[in-house]
Parts: sequence; structure tokens; C-alpha cells
Amino acid sequence: MTALVTLGETMAVLAAERPGPLACGTPLRLGFAGAEATVAIGVSRLGHAASWIGRVGADSAGTMILDGLRGEAVDVTRARVDDAAPTGLMLRERRTPDHTRVTYYRRGLAGARLDPGDIDPELVARARVLHVTGITPALGDGPLAAVRRAVDLARAAGVTVSLDLNYRARLWNRQEAAAELNHLVARADIVFAGPDEASLVVPEADPATMARTLLGLGPREAVLKLGARGAVAVTHDGEAVQDIVPVTPVDPIGAGDAFVAGYLAGHLDGTDLPGRLLLAATCGAFAVAAPGDWEGLPRRAELDLLHGADVTR
Amino acid sequence: MTALVTLGETMAVLAAERPGPLACGTPLRLGFAGAEATVAIGVSRLGHAASWIGRVGADSAGTMILDGLRGEAVDVTRARVDDAAPTGLMLRERRTPDHTRVTYYRRGLAGARLDPGDIDPELVARARVLHVTGITPALGDGPLAAVRRAVDLARAAGVTVSLDLNYRARLWNRQEAAAELNHLVARADIVFAGPDEASLVVPEADPATMARTLLGLGPREAVLKLGARGAVAVTHDGEAVQDIVPVTPVDPIGAGDAFVAGYLAGHLDGTDLPGRLLLAATCGAFAVAAPGDWEGLPRRAELDLLHGADVTR
Amino acid sequence: MTALVTLGETMAVLAAERPGPLACGTPLRLGFAGAEATVAIGVSRLGHAASWIGRVGADSAGTMILDGLRGEAVDVTRARVDDAAPTGLMLRERRTPDHTRVTYYRRGLAGARLDPGDIDPELVARARVLHVTGITPALGDGPLAAVRRAVDLARAAGVTVSLDLNYRARLWNRQEAAAELNHLVARADIVFAGPDEASLVVPEADPATMARTLLGLGPREAVLKLGARGAVAVTHDGEAVQDIVPVTPVDPIGAGDAFVAGYLAGHLDGTDLPGRLLLAATCGAFAVAAPGDWEGLPRRAELDLLHGADVTR
Amino acid sequence: MTALVTLGETMAVLAAERPGPLACGTPLRLGFAGAEATVAIGVSRLGHAASWIGRVGADSAGTMILDGLRGEAVDVTRARVDDAAPTGLMLRERRTPDHTRVTYYRRGLAGARLDPGDIDPELVARARVLHVTGITPALGDGPLAAVRRAVDLARAAGVTVSLDLNYRARLWNRQEAAAELNHLVARADIVFAGPDEASLVVPEADPATMARTLLGLGPREAVLKLGARGAVAVTHDGEAVQDIVPVTPVDPIGAGDAFVAGYLAGHLDGTDLPGRLLLAATCGAFAVAAPGDWEGLPRRAELDLLHGADVTR
Amino acid sequence: MTALVTLGETMAVLAAERPGPLACGTPLRLGFAGAEATVAIGVSRLGHAASWIGRVGADSAGTMILDGLRGEAVDVTRARVDDAAPTGLMLRERRTPDHTRVTYYRRGLAGARLDPGDIDPELVARARVLHVTGITPALGDGPLAAVRRAVDLARAAGVTVSLDLNYRARLWNRQEAAAELNHLVARADIVFAGPDEASLVVPEADPATMARTLLGLGPREAVLKLGARGAVAVTHDGEAVQDIVPVTPVDPIGAGDAFVAGYLAGHLDGTDLPGRLLLAATCGAFAVAAPGDWEGLPRRAELDLLHGADVTR
Amino acid sequence: MTALVTLGETMAVLAAERPGPLACGTPLRLGFAGAEATVAIGVSRLGHAASWIGRVGADSAGTMILDGLRGEAVDVTRARVDDAAPTGLMLRERRTPDHTRVTYYRRGLAGARLDPGDIDPELVARARVLHVTGITPALGDGPLAAVRRAVDLARAAGVTVSLDLNYRARLWNRQEAAAELNHLVARADIVFAGPDEASLVVPEADPATMARTLLGLGPREAVLKLGARGAVAVTHDGEAVQDIVPVTPVDPIGAGDAFVAGYLAGHLDGTDLPGRLLLAATCGAFAVAAPGDWEGLPRRAELDLLHGADVTR
Repeated sequence: MTALVTLGETMAVLAAERPGPLACGTPLRLGFAGAEATVAIGVSRLGHAASWIGRVGADSAGTMILDGLRGEAVDVTRARVDDAAPTGLMLRERRTPDHTRVTYYRRGLAGARLDPGDIDPELVARARVLHVTGITPALGDGPLAAVRRAVDLARAAGVTVSLDLNYRARLWNRQEAAAELNHLVARADIVFAGPDEASLVVPEADPATMARTLLGLGPREAVLKLGARGAVAVTHDGEAVQDIVPVTPVDPIGAGDAFVAGYLAGHLDGTDLPGRLLLAATCGAFAVAAPGDWEGLPRRAELDLLHGADVTR
Repeated sequence: MTALVTLGETMAVLAAERPGPLACGTPLRLGFAGAEATVAIGVSRLGHAASWIGRVGADSAGTMILDGLRGEAVDVTRARVDDAAPTGLMLRERRTPDHTRVTYYRRGLAGARLDPGDIDPELVARARVLHVTGITPALGDGPLAAVRRAVDLARAAGVTVSLDLNYRARLWNRQEAAAELNHLVARADIVFAGPDEASLVVPEADPATMARTLLGLGPREAVLKLGARGAVAVTHDGEAVQDIVPVTPVDPIGAGDAFVAGYLAGHLDGTDLPGRLLLAATCGAFAVAAPGDWEGLPRRAELDLLHGADVTR
Repeated sequence: MTALVTLGETMAVLAAERPGPLACGTPLRLGFAGAEATVAIGVSRLGHAASWIGRVGADSAGTMILDGLRGEAVDVTRARVDDAAPTGLMLRERRTPDHTRVTYYRRGLAGARLDPGDIDPELVARARVLHVTGITPALGDGPLAAVRRAVDLARAAGVTVSLDLNYRARLWNRQEAAAELNHLVARADIVFAGPDEASLVVPEADPATMARTLLGLGPREAVLKLGARGAVAVTHDGEAVQDIVPVTPVDPIGAGDAFVAGYLAGHLDGTDLPGRLLLAATCGAFAVAAPGDWEGLPRRAELDLLHGADVTR
Repeated sequence: MTALVTLGETMAVLAAERPGPLACGTPLRLGFAGAEATVAIGVSRLGHAASWIGRVGADSAGTMILDGLRGEAVDVTRARVDDAAPTGLMLRERRTPDHTRVTYYRRGLAGARLDPGDIDPELVARARVLHVTGITPALGDGPLAAVRRAVDLARAAGVTVSLDLNYRARLWNRQEAAAELNHLVARADIVFAGPDEASLVVPEADPATMARTLLGLGPREAVLKLGARGAVAVTHDGEAVQDIVPVTPVDPIGAGDAFVAGYLAGHLDGTDLPGRLLLAATCGAFAVAAPGDWEGLPRRAELDLLHGADVTR
Repeated sequence: MTALVTLGETMAVLAAERPGPLACGTPLRLGFAGAEATVAIGVSRLGHAASWIGRVGADSAGTMILDGLRGEAVDVTRARVDDAAPTGLMLRERRTPDHTRVTYYRRGLAGARLDPGDIDPELVARARVLHVTGITPALGDGPLAAVRRAVDLARAAGVTVSLDLNYRARLWNRQEAAAELNHLVARADIVFAGPDEASLVVPEADPATMARTLLGLGPREAVLKLGARGAVAVTHDGEAVQDIVPVTPVDPIGAGDAFVAGYLAGHLDGTDLPGRLLLAATCGAFAVAAPGDWEGLPRRAELDLLHGADVTR
Repeated sequence: MTALVTLGETMAVLAAERPGPLACGTPLRLGFAGAEATVAIGVSRLGHAASWIGRVGADSAGTMILDGLRGEAVDVTRARVDDAAPTGLMLRERRTPDHTRVTYYRRGLAGARLDPGDIDPELVARARVLHVTGITPALGDGPLAAVRRAVDLARAAGVTVSLDLNYRARLWNRQEAAAELNHLVARADIVFAGPDEASLVVPEADPATMARTLLGLGPREAVLKLGARGAVAVTHDGEAVQDIVPVTPVDPIGAGDAFVAGYLAGHLDGTDLPGRLLLAATCGAFAVAAPGDWEGLPRRAELDLLHGADVTR
């Protein structure tokens, strides 16, 4: 049975590994990415059954995505192959080691054609956690309605609703985003946000204060992701802070989603708040220490690797 | 001064070099392609000034395309960077050594936003040849109008109009294509087509007959490209056939456009019909003997390479 | 529900892609291979549920294999992670384009530790086809007993037993092999063999004769794989021959197993003998037209690709 | 019209990307490099027309260099293809991440055959800046005479003369260099040097003092490049210092030339001294943050990337 | 004549260069490694004749190893090609930039089949140094007996015996190791150990104290390798400490063996203790600054590279 | 003791593996090549001790060459590191799969600085065969004198002199070559030539006739290499013809030198003429079936691979 259900867009990624401008002849590597896919994979690698709902095109990229998710033991039986549009795609230039520049091909493409009919009520109702992000509602009316329906179904069934604000300035402006995200925050149980994202729905303040203010909007847990400064989480029972787990950085993309995966896996494990945050930070560190959004995510047996135990010998 | 002007869509290409299905981790190489770009580069490498008119996005792929064309000494001063849409892109899977499978990302993107205002009347009027293809009119109303306007300008100025039918079944159906291509053939001086493409505007028959029938529609030269069987050309002064120039094949894509480039370069050279066809076939062979659509196109000094002269020693 | 169950050894493969002797610095690519895994993937890609039973080590190679099979929608829920030995591995040198040289690391390793207890009786009993090969019995007493038990279970449940003789001279000699394979042939419904392999159990003769003699030993279908000369199949209802489907060859390894996959998928489709052989030959051709043992195997929608329909346009 | 003219040697580069000693099978990447080419490309990417004068061989490397420069919109119409000698080349070993070891093939080769007849007087006279380096005079009598002639032409036409001392110990000794560079400094308007290079013509002192002493020799601007410590510039109107712009370093080669490109582009922009130095340091940082000498140089729209503005979202 | 003789296991290495989990399609590079091979190569690159005794299989990997060692001028005329077992192999995943995970294929393979008969008494007797490690005795009875015999032969001939404890927890437990290593330490002249390894034979204490205690067991020199904290050495004539030589790290594997190579080369040079330690630390730094175990080891002329002298210009 | 001594130039090779014009970013692979080096390696791999005399520069390429030869068990103790000039180099473009285009950097470089003093009289006198080529005399006065001296020494000592005409039109013209080669042919025992090369010293005729005419000039064996048509050999005792051994071609370069290696190894084996020619043709086939000049050369145990015996199983 599925422990976590998530829905959203998963796109093909064409990523240059070497820093520098794209040019004729630049070698790239094919992969896939999506905030929700990363969460699903992260949770699955830590041993909890995860399902992903979304659409891909009837093309090679779509096949690659479904095979890739299935290979990671993410259930894709409710994912849909939509032959009316190709799979979305992003072209990633690594302009410098620290600055990635992405061209998106997603408007009107398969992933953005998600609609409420794609949400299987039974799947959601039987899960323990539903995870949604602020990206999906920004993709269009269908995806927005799909997120709302999934949240409604989850709430009706007593399933925990997790929301990562994930504001994407290219997809909508702050006003549009604030309106919808306010609505979603009020219906979520767990909310993740960066400080700038949080300021869409609560006044700017220090992270802990913003987290506390978020709690006042409805959720029972609010987690502020602070990048290199770690994270702070507030629940009705208490608060906790967490430093990052240090690693030699390879590719920062996906760290925030990896963090969410770890946190939610901790939830499914039944771990306490500091334990959830530590697992979250550990997953974030693993994501940073390998190329790709999700490729570096840890399996359960690898977690000690970043905490002193030497698995090499 | 520009000898050849062409207009159309140039897209970024992400091509797998190894045969087999795309998968996570498949290495690809970035490049660009477009039937008209190949013709422009081919003509330029053979020593005649060529200009390309079209649009790219204000992104890394657009920069790559303009730099690449400029590097090939193709004039891109009239190409336009359109910041309203990203550069079109194609993802090329080499399913087997002999079967390429492409997903296109072009609808509504920069290349398809070409419009008549992009055509510089002076540039066209001063050229010796205008080359257009049947791809551009299929991209939308703007590109269709742009092609019509370019042809009008050329005819008004006495510039030779070259047309490659280049029927693309994914973009329009045979009825739509036939209507527009009939119109264009009637206004062209030189027409290139495969037998199947020619059958859009003339009755099916043996290639030479079809070429002769094409002449009846208006052009003064009709060239049928027959793939591995070579080519046949008919003019008001006579006819000629040409075998392919044998090479070890590497990548067949672009061979037809390379053929056109060679033929038109022969025109600009003032070569007779057999000479034009030989140059055309030689260019086609060079294109086939290297990866990419245009990368293998010959420079003037290299032409002997496939005709026995050993440039290696 | 599983349509096909198979069991055997799947090993990590480290394969040089460029021909030539291995040397310091030679680039290799990681993958996995196993005759039965190829059959399972081939059947799965053609739309029939397949299960693989076997053991991998508790290491990165083992994870890669299980993820890879699962990604191909092959059920691995009965595969076992054995922490007592590492995953088997083969190092593949491509000495010339036509001569591969392999060093095997399999003796005593996880895959060879398969035993009868690994066979889930219910899984076998509910399948429509059980496929085994002559490799597994040669791996040791445990694997031999596992194959016997699987065949017993299948026969008891009326499940079709498919056997590919797959004689491996490095694992056992012809006398040992003949003894065991005779026993297995007698208990199989469908038998696949090359002429040399068939001669382990029937007198040497022309392929059709050997196939007919094989039928006399028990099976109701005997298929002789003749490499570049195609295949011949004999059943109680008739005989059929099949030429190879021509492609530009890339990597011949895995073609025989791909052939079996296609034949068995045809069985599961309910296709007649010529149809099964055509599907088998088509799968073999796809395998040859891409690197790797199974990577090139076709999905249902791709089958036409090698039969004239152009899926490229 | 050309804003900047430069002349010198551009060589093919064969560079190992991975650190470690060169060995059989080491992968390398082809490119090109030259101090003046980097300056021309840098200025061109920032939007000012640049011309490069020099010679390449009638070979593939020569074609690559001219195509590459032209692709960067550097005017190469006055560059000469010299069929009497091959294009110069350098083989770059990255012995450790921080130590590059180069074998040069340049003596007597095309680039070193530059002579005064290659300098187009009109091109120089119409430019706003002529940039020369201390490398060219060290290449032989012809190049030395060419530099002198270019400087004479510039001075006669009131064109600003920029000189980067660029002392190369492999090409001449300090005595020879000092004699010629003294002469050139006296005739330059803007002088760039590292402290050690500056000490060829002025007494060793702190950088600002050396820069001031340089001014006394004739130039109206003296810029000392201090590597990781930034730069200091002195003009008749004032002085300024500039820290480096911090980036994760990838390849330090070319940073000094990138700095010059930025400074001269600032000149052509009409920016004040601190603005020129900031642009210089930004260009240096971009060069360091990508492999290759010039590949990472910024376009105008990218400059903010290293100054906090996020172009990724 | 051989200056240094060493014996042990050299295995093929299949190493992923990019960090992250191994997956289908991961590119790897073939090489070889072994603690004693690294010492032999290091000593040989510094100009002293070195011999390696050991076994490889009659396969491509074995050929690669012998060719590789011979290419490094290590004498392999006493190495043996054992056709009874394949060459040992290790598969190296770089899980993060700082955590390598290795699967070994060595049990029962060629390298572990070393026996006392492989030791050429004359070769040992004529050498100046015999170097052995604590890995070999852990590989089985044959290798253990071979090490004992080599040490006996060396002592009988007055050849200096060098021992690196090199404890491998995967091969034996601390009790087994302690028993055998105690015996070997007592018979060695020079002993190398990390603090944890030293604690197998002497009580835990600060490094210098442990080194001094080691001297009491028999050796005349004890060197503690302290990783990032450098090294400390104690002899009957005095003590010395050495910091690491700083470099940008690429691959830490092999640094300890490189250190030993440098130290022993210093011995063969006749350098004093601080000189030996500096050479040791320099070799360690070179090993860290390149991929691979031994590939980055310095030649005599390169030593200054890390000490300020610029060999680039 | 050395069975074969050879002398000549060995250069670094930078070779593009993919067909097509060189461009910025083209990946290349480093190696080395030289007609005599290929012969030495081929003979060594077949089990006969071989020595190479020549010069490399005191640079990374020189080290790579000596390490590479030594790794192949070719004695390089008489090779000289010349610090007055860099190692020669060639840049190889694979313009099409069948047309390689090379730029040479060899004039005045280390390999061309060979002189008679480099020839060790004892080494030559103790060998069984001295092999020289027509390339070396064309490199300059020193190399010419060195070849003459080596031949004199060999003849004086009764050592068999082998000569491959190897005419290089880039190095000298036919008149110059004919004069010197005539002289060398008269002093050689075994002569190898292509028909065009043979025509430098004997009248054009069918190959067998030319071979017979060559015998009349002094040698006791004349072998005409006929490319795809095989070879014909004439001795005082008889004649023999040999077809090529068919393989899938990868890289034809080096096939002629591989042929010579096989022929001379057959000589050292004491094989009869047909046997020598078969070994020669087999070596040529192996060279063609792998990239690089010498990398694919066979070891003794591999010879059967191309003659039906399957070493794969």
C-alpha cells in the first residue's frame, strides 16, 4: 500500500555537466526531474511506498521518465501517457559552477495537461501522506484543479497534507501565487518554504517567527528551509533547528526537495521532530553531493555514510 | 554581397550518438539544424556569401545557433532574437543505426514566429538566389506570409527562386501542403523534391517524367532527389542523371539539404547541369559521411577527397 | 498477474564500447545482463507481465540490477538480496568489432547461490509460461535444484515450460550438460537451441530434422536458432522457417535471448507459428541494432520500425 | 566599424580536462587560444566590434580558429591563411588542478610568420583602440615589426594604444624583453602588467607605486593585475583598486586577458575608472568559472549573474 | 639491479569518475591498483629500480596490469601469469566526492594464489629494500607464507625490511591481524602505520609515543601517517614531524602508499629523516592531486612543482 | 637479447575518433605512432624481444611514448630524451570514415634529431633483424646518416636487414627518394613496398614482376603489400600470394606496418614463406579491427581469433 502520494510535473532534463556556456558540440546527459518526483524517489529509497500521479507524452522522454520512476520503486500505475502533447523538457546550462540557467519547454506540454480526472480517489484515500507543491497550481487551470481535488480528497479521508510552497517566478507573479498558496496553506498539515516563499503568505520576519506565523494559518507543522543555514521547524509541540550536514558540493539542485523527502520519510517512520529534521538535512546533503536532482538520494543503509560511519572499508 | 538568401526555422538539436533507446544517463550532443541553415552553410563553405533570415529565442540555444551560423560565415545580421518565446528544439533518438526518432519542440516557439516584417527587401533584391522550403509555410500563418513575401520580392527583383518541397507530414496534411506548394512551385525557378513530395503537385510517374511535369508548372529546372538511387534533373535545355557518390555512411540526416546546397552552389559557380548535379551529389555524400546535419559539408578544397585525389599524404 | 516467470543469474556487465584490447584508461560502461533477464525484459516491453527470480549481492551492482529490471516493469519482488556474496560480474573486452572476450566473476557469487527455496510456488503456478535456460543448472547444485523444482511446479500446475539449451562450455563439459539437458528437454513444452547445442541431445542433422527429433523427446515445439540464417520451428501442427530481419549490426550479443523473448511474447499474444517466429526475428534484429544485451529490445509500438513503417516523420 | 583592433598569434589548444599526467588514451579537447584572441572575443561579447589580425595555417586547425573567432563576431577578414606553415599548437597537461604544463609548437609556424604587410592601415586608423601584447614581439622579427608598425599607424591616427606586457620567459630573456617593452610602453596609452612584468621596465615597489612609475614613461593609464589580490589602476586623474569577484574556480587560464577585455570594453563604453575595473574583474571571474581561455567570457546580459541578480529563475 | 622489491596483490580497478550511485549506463574507467604496486611505481618514477612479485590471471586484466607496471619501468619478470583463476578486480563507486564504496572480487582469484615458491631468493637478496604490507598475509595461507619467506630471505641477506601495516577489516579481524602483524613488526626495519593500525600492536597514545613504542618492538624506524595532519617519524637517532603539502584534492585514494613510496625513495637516495618525510609528503600530495591510486605520482623533475618552482612557464 | 632492432621517429598522435571536420570542442585521444614503433610492438607482442632507437623530447609526450613502448616490452634503453626540442606530434582529423587528414609537427623536433651517434653498435650486432624504413632518411641528414650507419653495422655483423620503402611524399620528392631508396634496397635482405613505392626503384609492372625485379637489386626477399588485394612475396626459393584476412574495419592506419611486424615475427619464428605471409596478413587484419596504429596488434594466443577458433566462450 502506498504511504505517500504526490502529483505534479516531471520533465526530461538535458543537463550540461561541465560549466560554461552551451555551444555546438557541448555534451549533455539526459535525465528527468520534478520537485514531486524527487520527493517520491527520496521517500521510496528510504523504504516507504510512494506513488506519483502526472502525465508524460507518448514519446521516448516519457518512457524514460516512467521507467526511471518505476526503477526507483515509485508506483506509476496512475501516471498517464498523454499522446496529445510531448513530454516537457528543460535544457540546463551550467553557466558557472554556481549558476545554472534553464530554458523550459513545458507550456501546453503533457505535464501541464494534468487534470482532476487524473486523481485516483482511492489511491489518495489510502495513503498516509499527500504531498503537493506550489509549482503545480501555477501550470494552468487543469493542474490547479487537480491539486485542489487531491487536497480535498486527502482531507476528507484524514490523510496528512504536505505542501512545499516552491514559488516559481517564471510561472506566475507573486500576487497570483499568494492568493492560491494562502488557500493551500490553510488546508495543509505540513508546510515547507524558504523565507522568501513564506513571505508570500506571512509577513517577513526571522525564520522561526515566520514559521510560527505559518502555523497560525492552519498547518500543524511549518518548516523553513534556509539553504546553507540549515532549517527551522515549528509544531504545536515545540520547535527545532537543524544545521546542514556538510559535504563537498557537486550540484545543489534538488537539495530542497531532498530535504522534504527526508522530512516526510521521518514522518512515515514515526520519528520525532529533531529526528525528522536530521533525516531531512542528511537527504539534502546527499542530493548536493552528486550530480542530478535525485540521483544522489540515500537509501536507508547509506545514511550513516555522512555521519562518521565508514561504509568504505 | 549576399549570393544566396534563405529563410526558415533553425532549431537546437539534442542528438544521441549511440544507437538505442534514450534512457536516464544517455549522453547527447548539442547542435543545431534546419533545412535552410544546411543550405546556407553548404553554399557558404563552397565560397558564396549566404544570408539566413529567421528567429531564435533570447536564450543559450539561440546564441549557439547564431554563433554557429556566423562561424560558418553565414550572414545573420537580419536574423532576429525574439524574447517572447524560447528557441525551438528537437530531441533525436537514434533508435537503430538506420532509424532516427525525433520529438519536436517548435510549436509557438521563436522559429515559428517569423513574419513578413522579418524579410529585408533590399537583402532579397540584391541576392542572386532566394531559397525557400515547404517546411516554413507549414509552421503557421506568419511563416507562410513571410515565404510568400520573400518570393514576391525576389520575383520582382529578378532573383532566382529555389524551392525544396520538403513535405513534413507532422506539420500539415497532404491536402493543405498540396494547395500551398502548388502555388509556390508555380512561382519558383528551381524546384527540388523527392518522388513522394513531387506527387503532391504532379501525378505519380517515373522520376524523369515527374520532373518534366514539374517544369510544366512554371519552374525552369526540376530536380528529383532519389536517395540511394541518386538524382535526376530536367531543364528546358536538357536532362541529366546522377548517381550517389559512395561513402561509408555515418548519419544520413541532412543529405538532401546538402544536395540542394551543392546544386545551388554550382548555379552560383555558373557550372552546367551535370556539373551542378555532381557537386550536389558530392555534398550529399560528405553530409552522410559525418555526424550531424551540416557538420560534414565540404569546403571547396576538400571536394576532391571523395573523387580519388588523396589529400591525406 | 504474471504471464511469464523466469529464474537464473543476472550479472553486472562492464563493457568496453570501443573495439580493441583493454588497457589502462579504457572507458567502460556499466550495465547488467543475463539470458533470462533479457527474456523477461523482452516479454515485458511487449506488454506481458514478467517476473524474475534470482539473487544479487547487497552491493551497488545488485541495486543497479534490481532497479534496472524494475524499471523495465519486470517484477523483482521474489528476487533476493544475498548479503553473503557480491553480485556476479563480467568484464567484456571487444577485441574486434566481431569478437567479444569476457572474463566472468560468478563462481560462488550471489547469482550462483540460488536454491530451490527461492522459488515461490504460487508465482510459478499462476504464470502462463515458465522459462528456464541451460545456464542455471551449470552454475552449481543449488541452481540446478532450483531449476528442477521450478519445472516440477510448473508441470504440476499445467504451466507451459520453455527451455533454451544455452550451453556454456566454460561452466560444464558436453557430457555433464547432455545428461542434465536431456532430462530438462523431456520435461519442457518449448525448446530453443542452436544446432550445436541441439546436438547435445539429438544426432547432428539439418536444422529441421534436428528440430523434429527434439519433438520426439517430449516438447511440443522445437525452435532452432540459426544465427544469420534465421530460424526454423517445428510443432506437432506444422513447421515454419524465418529469415533474419536485416539491420545494420551494432552488437550481436543478446540476439538469441531477444529471439526467445519475441517467440514467447507471441505465444502469450496467441499468435500462430509464423507470427511468433516473425516477432522473434524482429526482436532479435532490434537487439542487434543497439549496444547491450537487452537495451535495444522493442516496445509494441516500435515493431513496425523494422518493417517499413516510418515512425520518424 | 571596428572599435578594437588587435594582432598576434592564435594557436590550436589540445587540453586535458582531467588532472594528472598525460598518458596513452588520455582524452583531450580541441580549442584555440591566444592572449589577443581572448581580448577580441571578450570585447565582442560585450557588444563592441573587434578585429583580429594574424596568420593561421591552411589546415583544419586554422579553419577551426577562423570559424571560432568569426562565430564570436570577431572580424577576421584581415586574418591570413598562410600555406607555408601549419597552425601553431599547444598541448596542455593539467598536472594537478593547479598546475598546467604546456608544450608549445609555434616556432616557425604560421602565427609566428606575421609581418608588417599584414597590418591594414585603414583598419587600424578607423578603430578606437589598438591592443597589442608583449608576446608578439617575442615571436620573431616579422611579428616584432608588425607590432611596431601597428602602433605607429595607431599613433599617427590618434587611436588609443593598449599594451599588455605579457612577458613570456620561454620566448625571450628579461634583457631582450625589457629593451623592447620599454620602447612599447613609451608609445602606449594604456598599459597592463603583473608586478613581475612591470619590473621589467620600472623598479620593483608596491603595485600602486609601480603603476605610478609606469605613467611617467608615457601612458596615461597603468593597470597592475595582482591575481587573487585584484588590481590597481592609476591614471592622471586618479587611482582605484579592485578586488576579485569571487567564483568557484574551474580553470584560471585566460583570466588576465579576460580582465583586459573587460577594462577595454569599459573604455569603449565610456565608463569611469572604477566601472572599468569592475567590468574587468567581472570578466576575469567569468573566465575562471569555466574551462578554456575565453569560453566563459560574459555577454552583456550575463554580467549581473556574478553580482547577485539571479538569472536562473 | 633492483633497489626495491615488493610483493602483493595488484587488481584491476573499475572506477566511476563522477560522484553518485552506480546505475545502468554509468561510465567507468579501467585501471589497476594495489598498495605494493603504488609503492613500486612511486619508487621507480623517482629513479630507483623496483620489482613487483605477484600473480595475475591469464586474461585481459592481467595483461593490462603487467603492461602498466612494465610501462612504469617496474620489473615484472618475476610476476606470474596464473591460468587457474582470473585477475582480481574491484568496482569503485564514488558515492559522494568524499566517500568511495568498493566491491572486491579477489577471494580465490589470481592475486590471492601467491605462494612462497613465487619469491625469487636472488632477487630479494640483491635488493636494498624489501617492502611488504599487512594486506598480503590477510589474503590466505599462500600469501602469508610468501610474505614470511620474503622477510626471512631479506633478513638473511641484510636487506632492509619495510612494512606498512595496512590493516584491512574486510579481510581479517583485529585479533587475527594483531597476531600476525606483531610478528612482522618484530622482523621489520621500517614500519608505517596509521594511528588506528598502530594500535593493533602498541597501546593507543599520541602518535609520537606510539611510534616510539613501535621502535621498542624491533624496527629502527617507525612512521605514523596521520592523514590531513601529516606524519611523525621516530628513529633511534631522532624524531621529525611533517605537515601535508597542500593541493586541491582530486582523489585521496593511494595517498598513504604514495607517502611510503616517497619515504623509501628518500631512503634509497640516502636522504636524512626530514628529507625523507618531505619527499613522502610530496608524493602523497601528488597522489591526491590526480585521479587514480598511482597515476599522479611524481617523477624526479616534477617534485618542485608543489614547492613554488613554476615548471609551467 | 634483442631479436629485432629498429630505429626511427615515434610521434605523439592526437586523433579524433568521430568522423567529421575538427571544430572547437572536438574530443580527441592521445596516443603515439611511428611505422617502426608499430613493427617493434607487433614483434614484441608475438614474443620476440624488440628494441627501438630514436629520440623524444623532455616533455609529457616523450614520457608517454617511452612508457608506452616499455609497457609493450619494447626495449627503450637506447632511446634518447633530447631536451633541445619537443616531441614530434600529429593532429589527425577523420574527415570521413575513410579519409584521414593529418597535420604533422615534426620538422626540427626531437624525432628528426636522430644521428649516427644514437646507434649502439653492440645492440645492432647482437640482433637477428634490423628493420628500417624509408621515412627516416627523409627526415634530415642526421636520420639519414643514422639509417646508413645502422645498416652498415648490421651487414658487417651478418644481421638480416629489413627495409620498408614507406615513401612519404610530404617529406621528399620522388627523385630524392628514389636515389636514396635504391641505395638502401641494394643493401637490404628483405624489402617491403606497395606497388607505387616499388615503382621508385623498379619499372611499373604487375606486383609479382615488380617483386622479382626487386630481388635483382640485391635483397633475398621482396614483399609487395597490395592493400585490400593482399600481398605477394618473392624469394630466391619461390613465390607466394596471400589474401587479406577479412574483418570489420575500424581504422586502416597502421595495417601496413602491422603486416611487416607479422612477417618479421614469422621470420624470427623460422616459419616458411606462406606461414610468414599468413602471420603478416593476420597482424594487418588485427590492426584494422581496432582504433589506433598498433593498439589492436595480436598477442600470440589471440592469433586464432580471426581464424575460426572462438576465444569468446
